[in-house]
Amino acid sequence: MIIIGELINGTRKAIKTAIESRDAEYIADLARRQVQAGAEYIDCNPGTVGEQEIEDLKWLVERVQEAVEAPISLDTPNGAALEAALEVYRQEERPLINSITLESERLAEFLPIVSGNEARVVALALDDSGMPSGPGQREDTALRLVERLREEGIAAGDIFVDPVITPLGTDPTCNRLILSAIQAIRAGAPEVHVTCGLSNISYGLPNRALLNRTFLVQAVACGLDSAILDPLDEELMRAAYAAEALAGRDEWCANYIAAHREGKLG
Amino acid sequence: MIIIGELINGTRKAIKTAIESRDAEYIADLARRQVQAGAEYIDCNPGTVGEQEIEDLKWLVERVQEAVEAPISLDTPNGAALEAALEVYRQEERPLINSITLESERLAEFLPIVSGNEARVVALALDDSGMPSGPGQREDTALRLVERLREEGIAAGDIFVDPVITPLGTDPTCNRLILSAIQAIRAGAPEVHVTCGLSNISYGLPNRALLNRTFLVQAVACGLDSAILDPLDEELMRAAYAAEALAGRDEWCANYIAAHREGKLG
Repeated sequence: MIIIGELINGTRKAIKTAIESRDAEYIADLARRQVQAGAEYIDCNPGTVGEQEIEDLKWLVERVQEAVEAPISLDTPNGAALEAALEVYRQEERPLINSITLESERLAEFLPIVSGNEARVVALALDDSGMPSGPGQREDTALRLVERLREEGIAAGDIFVDPVITPLGTDPTCNRLILSAIQAIRAGAPEVHVTCGLSNISYGLPNRALLNRTFLVQAVACGLDSAILDPLDEELMRAAYAAEALAGRDEWCANYIAAHREGKLG
Repeated sequence: MIIIGELINGTRKAIKTAIESRDAEYIADLARRQVQAGAEYIDCNPGTVGEQEIEDLKWLVERVQEAVEAPISLDTPNGAALEAALEVYRQEERPLINSITLESERLAEFLPIVSGNEARVVALALDDSGMPSGPGQREDTALRLVERLREEGIAAGDIFVDPVITPLGTDPTCNRLILSAIQAIRAGAPEVHVTCGLSNISYGLPNRALLNRTFLVQAVACGLDSAILDPLDEELMRAAYAAEALAGRDEWCANYIAAHREGKLG
């Protein structure tokens, strides 16, 4: 599964401090450790706004690409910050833009940037009607957005659909709706990747790590093949190995057995 | 979820020894610990055959009912052993007969015993064609067996369908087929319970406990509401709490939060 390492996120206090104090080694170390733990992309979210976000995102991208070869997930709703980050982007692998939506303004601003840079893109199942809630909404929005991106010439394999994870604690039915959405997206657009911002599911509940890995395992069974998560959470990564083996996406459990031999399964 | 505690099983070496030496306290202790850990039924499988099995199953049932109030799962393919066990059975709650199948001989022998004793029953998705392998086979056999049991007057809520878990290591596609079967059984017979002998999934693979709990979590998402498992495996029980909360079968995560407060979630 394609892991997008989530830890470089300025809404977390330690990262906020590192960004403010321009602590390059802290950021570089976090990038390296996530790659070593299995992250294929390193997400960078400055957690700031406006002009500050532009400077912060550029700085993060420069620090990460000094430290690792992995492509970067440019995590911002700010088109200007995104363009500035793409200007300094030097990794060999193409970046992932996190994220585009079907919201009119975001779509109009981000679509030319995605296609103009031949970037990969996280496609969040949101439109102008707000957060998805009822049955069928996530998959409907997601598949319309995929169609729109494909019309723009973006390859299905470059699209990472995110069905929008809402907290279980505020809506006890959300997990069933999300899992159905993942199955429907996988059926309706077999070649796209399906990812999610995992930790939203456990917001406000105790033992969040347990809920996060339990949700991941269920989502993988329904067709999820990527996730934005903390790759340093060893239990979570073990669950991912087992879930992939069970999903039949790990031929003869070869990755699972290799992970066991490397001592990664505990 | 309805946990059937699997540990009193004579195919396990320590239990074999305890049965052979008639170590009543060993069996009683194992029954008590499983109930304390959350088992609703205590499975008794002597792991012997013929006359010996009759004596051993009777002895196990007597020892377990001295120790706990929980109903017993009578785990034997031997009709004579089953009838002998039912004669000594004294628990207030009705027993679970583990298991009936659609195999002609087993069905003819067990059906009168199940209905004559108003017992609950594990209905294994097996017929005379042997182990299920292709898509659709498990659910087809299971639903035919449920129909047959219903014709005999057995209430849907007394039936625990088991879709037959085959080892992932010998068939990498089996998990997907099993999960589809669980969904189809849940859709086709909403009032039955769906259970499984969990640990078969990991046979022959390393880190079996990890695979077992990962599979449980996926199966619960598909509609499993019972399992034959080791309730003393704390990680497994934690996974079950989280899976149920995510499945929307734990209103406002009340059981999950209570388990957290009792320190059960680690």
